Amino acid sequence: MHALFVYAHPEPTSFTGALKDAGVAALRQAGHTVEVSDLYAENFNPVAGRHDFTSVADVTRFHYQTEQAHAQEAQGFASDLVREQQRFLKADLIVWLYPIWWGGMPAILKGWFDRVLAFGFAYAEGRRFDSGFFPGKRGLLCLSTGGTRQRFSADGVFGDIHTVLWPAQRLMIEYLGMDALEPFVAYAAPRVDAEGREAYLRQWQARLREVAGPCAGDLTRARQFISGK
Amino acid sequence: MHALFVYAHPEPTSFTGALKDAGVAALRQAGHTVEVSDLYAENFNPVAGRHDFTSVADVTRFHYQTEQAHAQEAQGFASDLVREQQRFLKADLIVWLYPIWWGGMPAILKGWFDRVLAFGFAYAEGRRFDSGFFPGKRGLLCLSTGGTRQRFSADGVFGDIHTVLWPAQRLMIEYLGMDALEPFVAYAAPRVDAEGREAYLRQWQARLREVAGPCAGDLTRARQFISGK
Repeated sequence: MHALFVYAHPEPTSFTGALKDAGVAALRQAGHTVEVSDLYAENFNPVAGRHDFTSVADVTRFHYQTEQAHAQEAQGFASDLVREQQRFLKADLIVWLYPIWWGGMPAILKGWFDRVLAFGFAYAEGRRFDSGFFPGKRGLLCLSTGGTRQRFSADGVFGDIHTVLWPAQRLMIEYLGMDALEPFVAYAAPRVDAEGREAYLRQWQARLREVAGPCAGDLTRARQFISGK
Repeated sequence: MHALFVYAHPEPTSFTGALKDAGVAALRQAGHTVEVSDLYAENFNPVAGRHDFTSVADVTRFHYQTEQAHAQEAQGFASDLVREQQRFLKADLIVWLYPIWWGGMPAILKGWFDRVLAFGFAYAEGRRFDSGFFPGKRGLLCLSTGGTRQRFSADGVFGDIHTVLWPAQRLMIEYLGMDALEPFVAYAAPRVDAEGREAYLRQWQARLREVAGPCAGDLTRARQFISGK
């Protein structure tokens, strides 16, 4: 299995950074491959605009989806988008890692969706949800919150975490035709002690191993063992 | 009454641009004042980082809220943030105008929240929701969607619009202690004809006049008329 981690945090020593590192290590140790889009390190520009394209469909008026569809036909996406689109296409599992800011993704990650997953490339008229482009691809949110689990419950001030994450789960991941896995949420990350953080990292690694399953190499070895070869 | 429009669309002739222009005109005609943050025209950078600050709290590790709190103490916000914070403080009503992309705000607007509404400036420990900094300030989302009203209903593929907008209404506007007004949504904006668009613009102007109420000048004139002076 091949995974793409799309990681959005400005500080490498952050807890989100630790989740990224622990996740990469867990998958690689299990024999899987992982690529990381480190949006801050790569200085990703999240602002949609004409710089998304080397092609032009309409020079007089900028209609984003029209330019996206044209670029898909004309191979006119800018190099940063081509790179991210190739990374996205290659992956069986995409993991988005970020801290919740203002109830959602940091802008640098929101703009990854806006720009990379372009009309024509990632969806089209009548090609959304069950008829989307990417059945079989799986999507997993991995996030840290400042608020406690209680605050993200139905009775909590922020509301149920599934309501908070609805736009991402439904209008991003499922919209693409992908399978939206249950998000991994490290609640109150800044408030837990070292032991609590370590527990989160171990839970996250276990979760990823479960999601990824045994790698092909392991299966081959298992079959060889069973067949006695 | 003084309003701030935070407007996020890359194309001035877009329908979102028309909503912005119609809204500004309606409020000014009613005697109110309006300022516009045109994020694309002003080339707003939505990426949170050290460039948010002229001050430094910790040179070894970038912890965003720590730097924000320090900047609030040290008057260390970068000039673009100071400008937006001043605009925000002055306004009785803040209107955010944007097209829904991937179930939420374009990145350029999401980053306006991330950067401008800093810890220490816009909220603090124990100063959120009912004990937030900005009681009496009102917040209003004005957005256009590609999808129809039916698709944004409880039975629709995107789910109820109130669920989709929950993160913005609850975890942004109400989080600040503001009064979150019912959003204005122009559904299926690219699909309606010229008459439908005109109807949306008129509804939007009527809604804004209702929200804004009579201006102080009007009240003075009304009182003068009643008292015969």
